[in-house]
Amino acid sequence: MAAVEKKRVSILGSTGSIGTTALALIARFPDRFEVTALAAGRRVAEVKAQVEQFRPSLVSVADVDDARELAEQLKGTSTRVTHGAAGLVEVATAPDTDVLLSALVGAVGLEPTLAAVDKGCTVALANKEVMVVAGELLCRRAAASGARVLPVDSEHNAIFLALQGHRRQDVRRLVLTASGGPFRGLPREKLARVTREQALDHPNWDMGDKISIDSATMMNKGLEIIEARWLFDVDPSTIEVVVHPQSIVHSMVEYVDGSVVALMAIPDMSIPVACALSWPDLLDLDYLPRLDLARAGTLSFEAPDTKAFPCLDLAWRALALGGSMPAVVNAANEVAVARFLADDIAFLDIAALIGDVMAGHQPVACDKIEPLLEADGEARERAGGWSAD
Amino acid sequence: MAAVEKKRVSILGSTGSIGTTALALIARFPDRFEVTALAAGRRVAEVKAQVEQFRPSLVSVADVDDARELAEQLKGTSTRVTHGAAGLVEVATAPDTDVLLSALVGAVGLEPTLAAVDKGCTVALANKEVMVVAGELLCRRAAASGARVLPVDSEHNAIFLALQGHRRQDVRRLVLTASGGPFRGLPREKLARVTREQALDHPNWDMGDKISIDSATMMNKGLEIIEARWLFDVDPSTIEVVVHPQSIVHSMVEYVDGSVVALMAIPDMSIPVACALSWPDLLDLDYLPRLDLARAGTLSFEAPDTKAFPCLDLAWRALALGGSMPAVVNAANEVAVARFLADDIAFLDIAALIGDVMAGHQPVACDKIEPLLEADGEARERAGGWSAD
Repeated sequence: MAAVEKKRVSILGSTGSIGTTALALIARFPDRFEVTALAAGRRVAEVKAQVEQFRPSLVSVADVDDARELAEQLKGTSTRVTHGAAGLVEVATAPDTDVLLSALVGAVGLEPTLAAVDKGCTVALANKEVMVVAGELLCRRAAASGARVLPVDSEHNAIFLALQGHRRQDVRRLVLTASGGPFRGLPREKLARVTREQALDHPNWDMGDKISIDSATMMNKGLEIIEARWLFDVDPSTIEVVVHPQSIVHSMVEYVDGSVVALMAIPDMSIPVACALSWPDLLDLDYLPRLDLARAGTLSFEAPDTKAFPCLDLAWRALALGGSMPAVVNAANEVAVARFLADDIAFLDIAALIGDVMAGHQPVACDKIEPLLEADGEARERAGGWSAD
Repeated sequence: MAAVEKKRVSILGSTGSIGTTALALIARFPDRFEVTALAAGRRVAEVKAQVEQFRPSLVSVADVDDARELAEQLKGTSTRVTHGAAGLVEVATAPDTDVLLSALVGAVGLEPTLAAVDKGCTVALANKEVMVVAGELLCRRAAASGARVLPVDSEHNAIFLALQGHRRQDVRRLVLTASGGPFRGLPREKLARVTREQALDHPNWDMGDKISIDSATMMNKGLEIIEARWLFDVDPSTIEVVVHPQSIVHSMVEYVDGSVVALMAIPDMSIPVACALSWPDLLDLDYLPRLDLARAGTLSFEAPDTKAFPCLDLAWRALALGGSMPAVVNAANEVAVARFLADDIAFLDIAALIGDVMAGHQPVACDKIEPLLEADGEARERAGGWSAD
């Protein structure tokens, strides 16, 4: 086999679920990857261990005091330490980066990801809120700079793959699959009493807390509809959602002749992360369990219950209203999920809160980042002050 | 939309199941296709109606007397009439053909299909016995002439599509799906007493008699394994079979990263026929029912029962023995199916006959057509004389 040049990877969110999955892959394929820069939040001990293992030239943490302490500990190494919002941008635009894995959670990833896109860097995008809040803006800037955006989300990665080798004009529908989350089949009455622990217990995926709650409310799928609209530049009416509890079919593309290309795999984020980091090469992940359909036995599909899970419709409505409204939905959802995780509001309050915050917002055009950040800030404030009566 | 040049189509087997499906498509898309030449067997009234509708420049029927009568009826038109084995080759090599649909049933399609391949003509191949009997030879000749072979079989068409946009070195497995036929789940004891009518009653597909019986014995899948080995130039060990009773997933390709590309569609041969005729364009078949997975509800998968359906293993063994052995399996199977359809032998005798004929054959190399035809002839003779005691 011919020697392959190493890809130089930088990671925003290196201690999160996607970040650690990526670093585990990079460790397994030392001939294929090296690490240029890492950014983490407050898990300083973990990021220190990552720096010692992967020896990036730059590392950033959230807090200035943590950064000082880490710099002290890394004295004498070739790794420079930085911090805060500026540190995220520095990591995102680190020289000698072939692919930036954008894997922060929430709108905090927006500015650094846009900075990498403006530089023309390939972005492996796991931070779906970036595309939800600023999809139009990001795609326009990527077109201008020539940056490529490769989706890491299993659903969008599946659609990306299912589009390969086909002509865009032949696409009839994008079909996003949804596991339905831990509460699939429950009526609204029962959803009113579900707990934080039940909501965090996803049947198929081992994910971060925010995404687990989004999956339980199905807002996760709502955000993915918005994301798909921009990632694949399609009319929202061509995007559909089907519930598929086994999470084996990760999404599908239907073509004009009626054929449907479905991307299947075991539910393991290593696969889409590896795809996005190594594309157009595929890594041989022969150590993973294989998909054995005869053993799986059954794949089932059903229409989503939009009455029990109103977040799906909220996202559709935000896409129809356009402009800054998706940013408002995202911001309100982030705050609502945080408040639910803090036992401050109930499960069904999440959708009620988002609906109320949306009702109080007049969408504005989003051709610049400022009005988006402003809408985001206002929505967070109203979401923080929301109460259930 | 830009004007598209019309594809000029010739058809071997125009009155069969695939041939009529193709002509129905061509009639629906008069701006995309025109018909150059047609070959049929003994259904003279039907082929006459086809000639009147599509006005090809050449038509061939099996019998010389039929040809004479047809020529009389078509006097004054621009359609020339020919007949017999030479007529098939004439149709297959008709000038001004962009794509030949090779849709005869059985080894009779071998010579005309090879003739088209030698000319460098694109061949839409529905006649799987051609690839089973002479796969190696046909692929070598296609490589030499530059002819392209596009599979029409729903399974191979699915694999062809699932390979698009991917690198061949990244393929880990080809997974052929099998409906399991009308007798899926029956034990051997019950299979001993099944009738011709039961065997012809396929649960999902409306097909010709020969293919329906092959599906009931699962020899259909055995022949498809051999076909896939040559069509996609893969080691036989990378081909697997999984039973999927709903016939919605038409086949799959697994890649080295563990992702599986599955091609789904409603079970309607219009879709793969349209694909093979129009490739690399796709036709908009908006009049067909769409695949509605939420309504379908469940896709199920199971391992094949090779004890109840020994034909699958016979085909694997033939591929392992190589040379002329696949041709022998195909010939013995054709005769066995004909004898079963004539109520001359029982259902389980089909596999017993093929096994006995295989046991009596020493495989020889198949770098020319002559030894293949010789093996074919001998196998047919022994299969005709076989009796169950």
